[in-house]
Amino acid sequence: MAEAAFQDFYPDDLALCYGCGRLNEHGLHIQSRWDGDETVARFTPRPYHTAIPGYVYGGLIASLIDCHGTGTAAAAGYRAEGRELGSEPALRYVTASLKVDYLRPTPLGVELEVRGRVREIKGRKVVVEAWLMANGEVCARGEVIAVRLPEGWR
Amino acid sequence: MAEAAFQDFYPDDLALCYGCGRLNEHGLHIQSRWDGDETVARFTPRPYHTAIPGYVYGGLIASLIDCHGTGTAAAAGYRAEGRELGSEPALRYVTASLKVDYLRPTPLGVELEVRGRVREIKGRKVVVEAWLMANGEVCARGEVIAVRLPEGWR
Repeated sequence: MAEAAFQDFYPDDLALCYGCGRLNEHGLHIQSRWDGDETVARFTPRPYHTAIPGYVYGGLIASLIDCHGTGTAAAAGYRAEGRELGSEPALRYVTASLKVDYLRPTPLGVELEVRGRVREIKGRKVVVEAWLMANGEVCARGEVIAVRLPEGWR
Repeated sequence: MAEAAFQDFYPDDLALCYGCGRLNEHGLHIQSRWDGDETVARFTPRPYHTAIPGYVYGGLIASLIDCHGTGTAAAAGYRAEGRELGSEPALRYVTASLKVDYLRPTPLGVELEVRGRVREIKGRKVVVEAWLMANGEVCARGEVIAVRLPEGWR
């Protein structure tokens, strides 16, 4: 069985995200995990996730980077506090800012790898840099500024 | 009948985009039109396009800004050359860079308005600023750097 993903630990009421919520039946179900000091998510776009024919839709790439970024932020938040993933109070981050540079067209029909690395943790804010690879080549680079949801939000 | 959208003029082989291609049967079918010197697209997210409950998924917002940006770039390209939308050779733009600042949570369940304005046209590049509104409030601001597909690409 695969190791649990960060998103598997989101509380039920915060697990409905279209990108990464395990309880959104229409969603993408992006799953992120640690890989040393980096994080990784793998995703195979559906045939209709096309931009120009043969290449992956940029909005999907932005979505992958977005949810992998907030997932990485949550995992980094737990790690910074020396806590187990999923321990209470739950940490959940939302996106304040998202930037994606599309370096080359991303081929459709192969598994994509999204990797992340924490650049900064400061108070409630986590800055994550991310990059997306296909066939071993970096196709896009991104940055997510994620902000922790206040406790009171739930 | 509504005035034709920019995306209605995309040639068939470039009209398969998940975000805005009229020929992608699974897609979002984003449609953009001139409104004076600005451009506008209206879109009502589906109930499952959720982030945290009650609010719109950030990846969808990025997708709306992305496709509205490239659509605006195409329309601006024709306008800059004094040509009719859809006249040959077809102009089609792809995203080189996308940035979105999420200013406040975007409520789910209402029609969203995405607006665009051309900030710069330089050679094959068009820079579009965009903003997304719900209930009359700006919820996100974005910038799209769009680049014209080379003729030879088709």
